[in-house]
Parts: sequence; structure tokens; C-alpha cells
Amino acid sequence: MQLRIPGPTPCPDDVLKAVGRQMINHRGKAFAEMTNRIVPRLQECFQTKNDLVILTTAGTGGLESAVVNMLSPKDKVLGVSIGYFGDRFADCASIYGAEVIPLKYAWGQAANPDDIRKALKENPAIKAVLVTHNETSTGTTNPLKEIAKVAKEFDKLILVDAVSSMSSIDLPVDAWGLDVVVTGSQKGWMVPPGLAFVSISEKAWKAHAEAKMPRFYFDYSRAKKFAADGQTPWTPAVSIYFGLDVALDMMLKEGLQNIFARHTRIANKARAWVKSKGLKLVPEEKFASNTVTAVHAPEDIDETKFRSILRTEYKVEIAGGQGAMKGKAFRIGHLGFITDKDMDEITVAMDQALLKAKR
Amino acid sequence: MQLRIPGPTPCPDDVLKAVGRQMINHRGKAFAEMTNRIVPRLQECFQTKNDLVILTTAGTGGLESAVVNMLSPKDKVLGVSIGYFGDRFADCASIYGAEVIPLKYAWGQAANPDDIRKALKENPAIKAVLVTHNETSTGTTNPLKEIAKVAKEFDKLILVDAVSSMSSIDLPVDAWGLDVVVTGSQKGWMVPPGLAFVSISEKAWKAHAEAKMPRFYFDYSRAKKFAADGQTPWTPAVSIYFGLDVALDMMLKEGLQNIFARHTRIANKARAWVKSKGLKLVPEEKFASNTVTAVHAPEDIDETKFRSILRTEYKVEIAGGQGAMKGKAFRIGHLGFITDKDMDEITVAMDQALLKAKR
Repeated sequence: MQLRIPGPTPCPDDVLKAVGRQMINHRGKAFAEMTNRIVPRLQECFQTKNDLVILTTAGTGGLESAVVNMLSPKDKVLGVSIGYFGDRFADCASIYGAEVIPLKYAWGQAANPDDIRKALKENPAIKAVLVTHNETSTGTTNPLKEIAKVAKEFDKLILVDAVSSMSSIDLPVDAWGLDVVVTGSQKGWMVPPGLAFVSISEKAWKAHAEAKMPRFYFDYSRAKKFAADGQTPWTPAVSIYFGLDVALDMMLKEGLQNIFARHTRIANKARAWVKSKGLKLVPEEKFASNTVTAVHAPEDIDETKFRSILRTEYKVEIAGGQGAMKGKAFRIGHLGFITDKDMDEITVAMDQALLKAKR
Repeated sequence: MQLRIPGPTPCPDDVLKAVGRQMINHRGKAFAEMTNRIVPRLQECFQTKNDLVILTTAGTGGLESAVVNMLSPKDKVLGVSIGYFGDRFADCASIYGAEVIPLKYAWGQAANPDDIRKALKENPAIKAVLVTHNETSTGTTNPLKEIAKVAKEFDKLILVDAVSSMSSIDLPVDAWGLDVVVTGSQKGWMVPPGLAFVSISEKAWKAHAEAKMPRFYFDYSRAKKFAADGQTPWTPAVSIYFGLDVALDMMLKEGLQNIFARHTRIANKARAWVKSKGLKLVPEEKFASNTVTAVHAPEDIDETKFRSILRTEYKVEIAGGQGAMKGKAFRIGHLGFITDKDMDEITVAMDQALLKAKR
């Protein structure tokens, strides 16, 4: 099966072999050595010198960790949302008692840095900007560099959901001055779900020291304390670490810039296919994501049937629309372990399934 | 290596093979079918008809979930603690704003149900009793049946840390009337860390409906809603599900009562060895755990050297003392995937390492 949903993504055989290794003591030397190999390579992928913690959780737990470690109840935050995951980040902050000032866009749009500047001007009490780098539900990549620049103009914290972009799309954390950046193992990292990686800037640590939201399992201070010994405060998902250790080798051997270029090239193929079929991307092309291509389902196609034929007859599994776009769009995940040849096979399969799914 | 720490525990080859399987769509049919196979078998192991949710987290996240889903800030709770993990459960409640009335025992003691009765009489406002079934730090099993009886006399919620007991030690959730019971995949379940399983009684659901502590990632309502479709609200640790699916087959083939009997038999061997060497158990023998044996390190033995020799020369890895007992005790984990023969090998290895570690 070509599993081409936007995560979990397929894992290379060597990664899976590692994932299936026998358990080791998470308080022992071998585990600490593995962690001490993993963390600097993650930092290399994040292009950061910031602290980096590994949490045993889904990406959403990583987002929650950013909220509860940085904020206090009643803090004002700007909740930039261009889709399902932007809403999720803001919801989480709101549930923990932050006062979320929403900046919502129609699905398919990217956030406009000027709107953010305006919002920050109008609401000087805002403490942090919550923003999604790559919105998986709409296949849209926000102009994060420009957004971060605005947040810094106003000296605000910027908390970034980079779950479906980090390591696939260029995202230089330090160059852009991003305070907390969250990603998940099952996306561009070519390993199974179960871990979130979070970078934490100096400014973020200062905010953390004053943040009053309750936190225990996701507490960055506890994570940092144990990280000094290559450990985690709670029992980590050892198997996923094993896989990550191997995947990072493969990634750095390929080279970050080559990985970004491969994602761009493959995404361009996906978008060229969309155009060639007279279909319409969900996002404006200039903001179309290099990790997931979201496509409006045309009227004359039964979208569910299309995906079902693809899956059963051509062994290509893509995702449907999410949230408000359920039944109205389909999404091709092309991140992590994917080659140009894979995308060629996928487009050929989609050609045929599209024909068969005509109403 | 005989990995005999109290978790992660070794996994059978077939489980590891499953853990290393390629990813599947967590929103697809195969994953839902797997979940729908897993949940009823977990319920069988929990001996419960209560709802059961699976969370992607370490056991500690499971404990946090019990706190935040059942309580409101300022709720009074009785925090029964006989060691490191009892303290952890209470700390978590306290951090989320519960008013914890501590009932602490010296390490090595079990909780006395009469003390709990007294505490509940003196503090009628107590809403819930937090208790550890099996305290991993001291190798002590609390008389949970009697404790639960007292909690029910006073109509209190009872929230149970069964991380290192469930599926290894008889723990009939419904017969004992336990409201929330939490365990972790890396213990008696013979699978790697990454998942927590939680049973939730009807009484607990009522408490949940009124509980005001903030919760997002660990929210039981969200988990229940998605569980209806065999899914989870957030991307689950698919690999660990694969392993669990296989492990549960093995467990139910062996039979729950046989598993409990095996753990009793093997723990008896461990305790007989302790006696034969003139060593002293940390707990009173009557409360000694069937999953982990904690032993006072004798004066004439270098405890660190003992474990180091065991590990390097005999390929048996046991755990040291935890928290207050660091350097003063060692702990043998004997839960999950372990046979009588394993324990025979371990005791022979310990015999020899003990000799070599004499000061």
C-alpha cells in the first residue's frame, strides 16, 4: 500500500526493523547515549541551538505542552487559524483559560502578516501569537517568516504548530526567532506516531518561569531536568526512539536542503497533476503546501468512491477532506519517506481512479 | 539480556514483529477493526464492563488523565501514598489545584484501610481517594479490595494507579467497584511503552460531567466520542497497538488466572531467594508484590557494583532503589513476559554477583 495520507506516513524498512527491537532500560546507559545522539540531530533539523525536548505523546499533546508551559489563565493570545489545526491550537489555549483573540481565515487562505500587525496594534495586551506553519486540513503553508517578523516587532512570543512541516519544509527556527516549535514523529520524520519534539527559546524559558497554567506530564522543566542525563521524567516510547535514531541518520545523510528540494519537487508534481486534470487546489497556489496537496473534489466525481477505488484497486491510500471540507475535498500526503517515482505511481493511479469515479 | 526492571519489560518476538509493522491509516477500517478487537480484550483483563479508553502517553499521563477528568480545582482528595508513585499521583492532583489531604506511610508499609476510614470520617468533604495498587518503588501491594470497600462505604470516588499490577495481579475492577483504573502498556502487557489504558465507571462519568479541571489532550469525552468509531481523537501510537493486538492473544490464550498464578509462583521464587540469602524484603512479606521484589541492600554489599556485575557479566538487568531508597535497595522486576526458568536463571546469576559484590 502507498499510504499517502498526511500522517502517519510510511516508514523505511530499516526504521521499522529498529522500531521492532527488544526493550532496553530507559534509565540505562544505552538509552541515554541514544538520546544524546538524537537530540543534536533534531536540533540540526530544527536549525536551532534552542533546547529541544522529546515528549511521549501525539502532536496534539505537543501543542498542549506549548500552551500550558508558556501561558497563564486570562493571558491574551492571538489565535491565528487558517483551518482545522489552527482551530485546535486555539481551542486548547481557550480550554486552559487563555483569552483567545481569534484571527480566522476562510479555509484555503493563508494568514496575512498585515492582519497580524493590525491585531497586535489593536490589542497591546496580547502575550503570544499561536500559529500553524503548515495547515494539514487545507494544504496551506503560512508565510511564517513574515508572521514571525511581525510578532518580534511587537516583542510577542510566537508558538508554532510545525507538526506537518518540520524537517520537510525549510523552517529555520533560530533565523526566524521562533519561541516554541512543535512537531510530531509520524510526519516528515519517517517514524511511527508516539513522540512530539519541541524547541524552546530563551525567551520561551523566561515565559515558562512565569506561566501559571497547570502542567505535570507535559512540564518542560521536568523534561529539561531529566534531559541533562539523557533521560525523560516518565517512561518514554522506547520503540519510536529506536526508529528515530535510524531515520535521523538517513535524513542527515540525504541532507536537509536535499530533503526540502525533494519535497518541493514532488509537491510540484502533485500540483501539476491537479492542473492537468482541470481540478482546483484548495489553497491559492502560492501558499500551497509541499507536504500535503488538498484538492477540491469536482462535482462530477464521487469523492468517497474515488478514494475507495484508489485504495482497493490501486493500493494508494489518500485522505478525504477534514472538518468543514469532509466530502468536499481530498488530500494527498507527500511528506517524509517518498520518492519522485512514488508520486509518478500515485498520479497514474489517480488518473485511472478518477475516470472510474465519474458520476 | 534479561531485562528485569519493573518496566519496560521484555516483549515476546511475535509482539516485536508486530510492533515493527508498516503504518496504516488510523482513520481507516483496519485500524478500527484492530481497536474493536483490542478494547473488549482489555476489558476482559480489567474484569470490567466499564468503558475503557486508550491514550497515547506514558502511565503518568494516564494518572494525570484520572485527575483532570474527575476533579475540579479545590476539590478535597485523600492522597494515599506508600512510596514514590503514590507521591506522584498526589503531586499531580495538587498541581491541578486539588486540595490533597495526604495519608502517607513509611516506605515498605502498605496502607491500612482503617486509617482511610478514619480520614474519610474526619474529612467528609473528601471527593475522591487516590491510591496506588502496586507501589513499584517499594515492591508493595496495597490491600485494594479493602480500601475500595471503605471508599464505597463513604460513597467516594476511587482512582487507582494500577500501572504495575493490572493484568499481572488479580484486580477485578467491577467486583471491587473501582471508578478509574489506569495502567501502562510497558508493564504486565508485554508490549513497549507508549500507551495507557483507563477504565471509567458510570459513577466516574458522572463526576467527569461536573469536573472543572482543564483538559484537552487527555479528555475522556473526546476519547469516548472517537472510540465509538474505533478511533482516537489524536493520532495514536499505531505500532504499540500492533504489538498489543498480538500480546492480548497470547495473554488470553494463557488465561488470566494462569497469568496471576504464574506471577505469584515466580514472585515466591524471588522472595525465597531473598530469604535464602539472609536478605530483607523492603515490604512486610504479606504485602510483598507479585510483580516487583524490592530488597534492602545489605551493608556488606556494594549495591551499584552488584547490579553492574549482574548486568555486564550475567546479562541480567535489575533496578536500583528509587527516590528515598536510591543506593539502599535493589528491585527485581518479574512481570509480563517471564517464565519460571527465567527466574531460576536470575537467582543463579544473583547468587554469583552477590558474592562478587561483597565489600
